[in-house]
Amino acid sequence: MSVPPSGRDDCLALDAADPLAPLRELFDLPDGLIYLDGNSLGALPRATAGRVAEVVRDEWGRGLIGSWNTAGWMGLPRRVGDQIARLVGAGPGELVAADSTSVNLYKVLSAALALARAGAPQRRTIVSEASNFPTDLYVAEAVARAQGLALRLVEADALPRALDERCAVLLLTQVNYRSGRLHDMAALSAAAHAAGALTVWDLAHSAGALPVDLHGSGADFAVGCGYKYLNGGPGAPAFVWAHPRHAARAVQPLAGWMGHAAPFDFAPGYAPAPGVARFLCGTPPVLGLAALEAGVETLLAAEPLGGLAALRAKSVALGELFIALVESRCAGHGLVLASPRDPQQRGSQVSFGRADGGYAVMQALIARGVVGDFRAPDVLRFGFAPLYTRHVDVWDAVERLRGVLDTQEWQRPEFNRRQAVT
Amino acid sequence: MSVPPSGRDDCLALDAADPLAPLRELFDLPDGLIYLDGNSLGALPRATAGRVAEVVRDEWGRGLIGSWNTAGWMGLPRRVGDQIARLVGAGPGELVAADSTSVNLYKVLSAALALARAGAPQRRTIVSEASNFPTDLYVAEAVARAQGLALRLVEADALPRALDERCAVLLLTQVNYRSGRLHDMAALSAAAHAAGALTVWDLAHSAGALPVDLHGSGADFAVGCGYKYLNGGPGAPAFVWAHPRHAARAVQPLAGWMGHAAPFDFAPGYAPAPGVARFLCGTPPVLGLAALEAGVETLLAAEPLGGLAALRAKSVALGELFIALVESRCAGHGLVLASPRDPQQRGSQVSFGRADGGYAVMQALIARGVVGDFRAPDVLRFGFAPLYTRHVDVWDAVERLRGVLDTQEWQRPEFNRRQAVT
Repeated sequence: MSVPPSGRDDCLALDAADPLAPLRELFDLPDGLIYLDGNSLGALPRATAGRVAEVVRDEWGRGLIGSWNTAGWMGLPRRVGDQIARLVGAGPGELVAADSTSVNLYKVLSAALALARAGAPQRRTIVSEASNFPTDLYVAEAVARAQGLALRLVEADALPRALDERCAVLLLTQVNYRSGRLHDMAALSAAAHAAGALTVWDLAHSAGALPVDLHGSGADFAVGCGYKYLNGGPGAPAFVWAHPRHAARAVQPLAGWMGHAAPFDFAPGYAPAPGVARFLCGTPPVLGLAALEAGVETLLAAEPLGGLAALRAKSVALGELFIALVESRCAGHGLVLASPRDPQQRGSQVSFGRADGGYAVMQALIARGVVGDFRAPDVLRFGFAPLYTRHVDVWDAVERLRGVLDTQEWQRPEFNRRQAVT
Repeated sequence: MSVPPSGRDDCLALDAADPLAPLRELFDLPDGLIYLDGNSLGALPRATAGRVAEVVRDEWGRGLIGSWNTAGWMGLPRRVGDQIARLVGAGPGELVAADSTSVNLYKVLSAALALARAGAPQRRTIVSEASNFPTDLYVAEAVARAQGLALRLVEADALPRALDERCAVLLLTQVNYRSGRLHDMAALSAAAHAAGALTVWDLAHSAGALPVDLHGSGADFAVGCGYKYLNGGPGAPAFVWAHPRHAARAVQPLAGWMGHAAPFDFAPGYAPAPGVARFLCGTPPVLGLAALEAGVETLLAAEPLGGLAALRAKSVALGELFIALVESRCAGHGLVLASPRDPQQRGSQVSFGRADGGYAVMQALIARGVVGDFRAPDVLRFGFAPLYTRHVDVWDAVERLRGVLDTQEWQRPEFNRRQAVT
């Protein structure tokens, strides 16, 4: 978008012409709030409360233990997994919903290392991005230390050079949580494979926000988050995928009964399930999976309207609009774009750095009803979940941001007291 | 109970005189159903549906990302953990609710092995019971294999002899899932310590069913299940405890951001939280934790009525009644007590073996509205959750069991088709 809309009415017109606009009605959003943090916690789908209530009152309360069979609880990890698979370019039976992103990362990183290092013990490094999400780095650090390997962290541009004969696994989050930078999964996977390494992709900030093509891009393993663009609710179960060429022989260390080939035989010895189900571990978290299922179904409702390709186009348009408006209407206030300017290299979020007072600016903006978030030391982060964000929301958000900056109200003491924010 | 009640009216009289009887009203149980499977999935507390709906509609739907602070989501693992601590003889700040039992077992077993083997590399065995719950054995087997250690499985009576100079960790479930046998935690922990080993206790079938005294019995680490006697709902989060003498130095491999000393600093390097919070890993599962909190609060409502000591006394009375009635009224039908006859050596369940048709007998009994479960190859298992099970339920359950056996209706084809049951 080279020329930004000159007024709010232009944005309303864009919304009126937007074929995806009706999808917003699938969400239960507070009146007047502009929610630009769906990249951290997705909004509540209207279907979720009823679905969760049904699970609690009817399936659990009435069906009790029998609901493991009669209500299909046992199949939830695979059923929800098959739905998520449609969003990330994976096939049915290849992906399961389970545990947290961190726990799943531990499983697939362990499995990938074992496969990559079989017959190649000289491969002793896990390569990742220095600014990868911390929990990914913590897990990788712990796995590396336990196995006597090295975690090699480089800047994004140096990744291809780090993929050498010592590399066992490339571990990346497809969209960087701070900058929103979108990695080229196909190119990096090809480079990793050319070097003899395997890839583990964290789709936390991409699944549900843009088309992901796990098969087409040559990924080996992937994990992802259920509570961001999948709208599964706070702390929703995550997901885990293994390429079929690996799934049947991958060994993951969290060998729990739900990953067993026959959990209800209660056999004393472990025999992993034939495919990706071996990445399950404990009893499925039914309430969380039911909410996640409702969230994913809400995303799948966009399929007749063009699905993720259409959602991605809208997300790009919203991001471009936001950048153009911030740079024109908030000029002179020290906001510096911290995301790639090329939308093809950016996920569904836009970050601006501000050398001073970034935290307080965000708090003041939240007080004005625009919810983004702040990432230390200096990043204001805005997510544009295309299912429920309107062009007019972007206009209004920038106007309120301008108000916060023009009035200097962010300098008030109440906006400068820190709290933990996830 | 040497003389069983001679009739249903005697049982009704016992219920009328039972000071714990009003606690049943805290649960939402289907009319007419006799639920003797609370040891597998606890019943639905009346408070839960409203609490979960509030979390979904208000905290998530209205509060969105801000609820991590304003609704106390960040504190849920510790807050629910402190409540559970009161049920198992642990102190505040010593226990957290998180992940599944299997995942937590992996954490504490890994941590215990590292502590027990520091300076004692010759300790190469994990000792457990041959009939321990399979997922515990699978996890132990995987950990042992990855570390080049041995998993030594022995019968319960042989446990003390297996605690020798080669043993690093004794891993036991306090109440055996099949037989209901209750281990002497204090004696076995003392024997393990005398041999220089550490102990890991799985409280899946004891927490919330009987008084557990982690401190008094000298346990080192413990995990437990949220969806059995804690009534947290299907697949509820589990819990993990480390004795304070270990918590500050224990290293567990699932190093995720919620176990970090300062998760929201987004520091690139991992620094574990000072205490048991280092056993957290990924983002807390809020819906599951909210339901678990409601379940645990329902248990804590028994505290003014004598708490777990009183609940245990009732549970023992119910079990004794059941055994006496089955052995008198179902005599000649091939049911053989498979649980310890001494109630002090038994948890809150009673198992009967039947050489032939045990599965079908249980299915026929369920069709008559008495829900227990079957564990291959031959065990009919009945749990007596003392919060909501009445003496008259025991009477009626045995009468219906007698009906199933007297009429031979269990031989019908529809009761002989296998389904997975957890």
